[in-house]
Order: sequence, then structure tokens, then C-alpha cells
Amino acid sequence: MKLYFAPNSRAVKIAWLLEELGLSYKIEKFNVGDRALRTPEYYKLHPMGRVPVLEDGKITIYESGAIVQYLLARHGEGRLQPQNNDESFPDYLQWLHYAEGSIMQQVNSLVVETILLPPEKKNDVNVARASKLLKIALINVDSRLEDRDYLAINFSGADIMTGHACFAARRLNLDISEMVNLNQYIDRLLSRPALKRAMSL
Amino acid sequence: MKLYFAPNSRAVKIAWLLEELGLSYKIEKFNVGDRALRTPEYYKLHPMGRVPVLEDGKITIYESGAIVQYLLARHGEGRLQPQNNDESFPDYLQWLHYAEGSIMQQVNSLVVETILLPPEKKNDVNVARASKLLKIALINVDSRLEDRDYLAINFSGADIMTGHACFAARRLNLDISEMVNLNQYIDRLLSRPALKRAMSL
Repeated sequence: MKLYFAPNSRAVKIAWLLEELGLSYKIEKFNVGDRALRTPEYYKLHPMGRVPVLEDGKITIYESGAIVQYLLARHGEGRLQPQNNDESFPDYLQWLHYAEGSIMQQVNSLVVETILLPPEKKNDVNVARASKLLKIALINVDSRLEDRDYLAINFSGADIMTGHACFAARRLNLDISEMVNLNQYIDRLLSRPALKRAMSL
Repeated sequence: MKLYFAPNSRAVKIAWLLEELGLSYKIEKFNVGDRALRTPEYYKLHPMGRVPVLEDGKITIYESGAIVQYLLARHGEGRLQPQNNDESFPDYLQWLHYAEGSIMQQVNSLVVETILLPPEKKNDVNVARASKLLKIALINVDSRLEDRDYLAINFSGADIMTGHACFAARRLNLDISEMVNLNQYIDRLLSRPALKRAMSL
């Protein structure tokens, strides 16, 4: 398998999962914003020039949530996701989708406003709005973790998706110090050898 | 089953799917922005006061993508999604996740700027940025539909997710008239009796 990858991007999730599953893969490494992602050749892999993209034999797939589900279905051998009839299956799905449905829009907005745009173009209204909504979304994760270590009983693909969104959020200039469960959760994830390897790529 | 619903919200997707599957369900109807979604009682169903939420016996689940996958897994009897080993399975997953991963952030931004905010607070930079990104995301769908009627061979949950994002986008003040395949696709979806029923709730 081949993973089109960039550090500090959603592609970290896919490298993390590949490492958790012990699958062998090659990476083609870019940096976010690279011109190499804006070439006719790369647009054949991803028409909007984004990472991650996964190639698996003749299959090419993008959207990180889709790649996580694809890898678990085809190469997971039952690991890191509950079966359809398990009690934790609805929670698993909910928290798998929560990352893109409820967190990443605000993370993306804050990355644009506070990192990508030149300071004179930063819009404080946008920053305040995204920060407020992001905090509300993270407080919900913090509450969920009140009496559990992972979002759906055991560590799963849901933690890779929403856990990644949480630590992407913590890297931004946002005060989440009062969210004790969330911070412990992020630290718990960051201590996993598979994630350490993915973050060192 | 009981669906917490509001017209012109992501909850339409779930009513649409329930109608396609011929499942019986009750709805509790709100309007987007209702104070009834901001009560301690409703927060027990969805801590951020959003629709859709689905109750199925003792199970409560939110995130529209999760609910679609939950319904198809538990009540679909093999309909509207390929099996894991089908050739179209990777495409199905990709286009299922494309809705929230690549379209809805821009739709949400445009709804905030052009519908929810009072005109004097509208930010033209935000509108231009979201419109540009949304068009790029929709052109990709238009290209995908060059030689097919649905995103993953047959009509599926992926069309409910990304199809809904497309017609939500078309309702905004965005010129997509040149995207012929996309417009035909939206019309094809809107002609389905199940969607007509969901949109009349």
C-alpha cells in the first residue's frame, strides 16, 4: 500500500492506523501547501490536491474517514472496530463521524485564520466564532470521557478520527486546560507507539 | 424508531433513508434555531442541541453519517450499501464521507453568512472564500457523474449523504449552472418519492 502523506495533516490518522494494524506501507511525503499537490498528476489521485490518499493495489481512495473504514473492513481482521451487532457499534459510528461532523470545521477555520493567513488578514470575528464552537464540541468529548478511557469502550477507529481532531485542536491557541478528561485522553493517545511513529514520519 | 427532525436540516437525510427503506418511524419536529433544542431535556439527547438524533429502542445516536451507517447495518437488510468485498465498496465509503469532509463546511459557512447573520454582519471575504471552495468541491462531484447516475454504481447511502450536501449547496446563492451532470443528479434525487416525502415533513 502507498500513503500520500503530509506531516500535521489528516494523513497522520492513516499512518497511525496502518501502524496500529502492523501493515506494511510506503509513503510519498509532501508538506501541506506544496505545489506538488497542485499538479495534473496529483489531481488524478485527488482532484482537490489534498492528503491523505491511499493506494491499495488498483484501489485509490481519499477522505480520511473513508480510508479508516476501508482499512478496518479489508485489512483489520476484526481489530479496532466493533461488529455490527455489538452493543458499542452505535457509539463507534457516532464518534467516528463526530470528527468531521462536529470538530474539524472549527479546527480548519482556526488554522486558516491563525496560521495560513498573514496576520493583517486575520478576522477576529471568525476566530472568536470558531473558538466558541470548538470549545463546545470539545466539552462534549470531555464529558463523554468522564467515566471511560476511549470513546467506544475499547480503543478503536473512532479514537483515531475524533482523537486526532482533539489533538489537532489542542495545538491551536485555545485554552482547554479545564477539560481534564480530554487532556488525559489526548496524552493517552499520544503515548501510543503507533501514533509516535506516525508523527515522526 | 423516533427521529428528532427539523426541515431543511441534516435530519432530512435520515427521514429520506427511513423512507427509502420503508421503515416506520415517528418524528418529533423542531425548526432550526428553536429554543426547544436548547433545553436540559434536549441536551440529554444531543449535548450541542442539534438535529438529527435517532432513537431506536434503548439506542440514541447522532451525527447524520453515523445514523445512515447504523440504519443500513442494522435495518438495511443489504440494501443501499455494497458489501465490504464488493468492487464499489471503496467508492461508497469515499462518497459517504465526502459530504461532511469536503462539502458541508462551506455550506455551513454560507448559511451562517447569508441566512443566519443580519446583513450588516455579513463578511464578504468569508462568502467569497467559502463559495470558491464549495464550487471546487462540487466540480469534483460533477466530474464523478460524467459517466454514471450515482456516486457508487447504484443509488446508495453515499448519494443520501453527498447528494443532500449537493442540493443544500444548490439552494444557496451560488451559480452552478455550468455543472450539467451535477444538476441532473440533484434533479434525479429530488424526483425520488422517498425524498419528496422526507422534504414534506
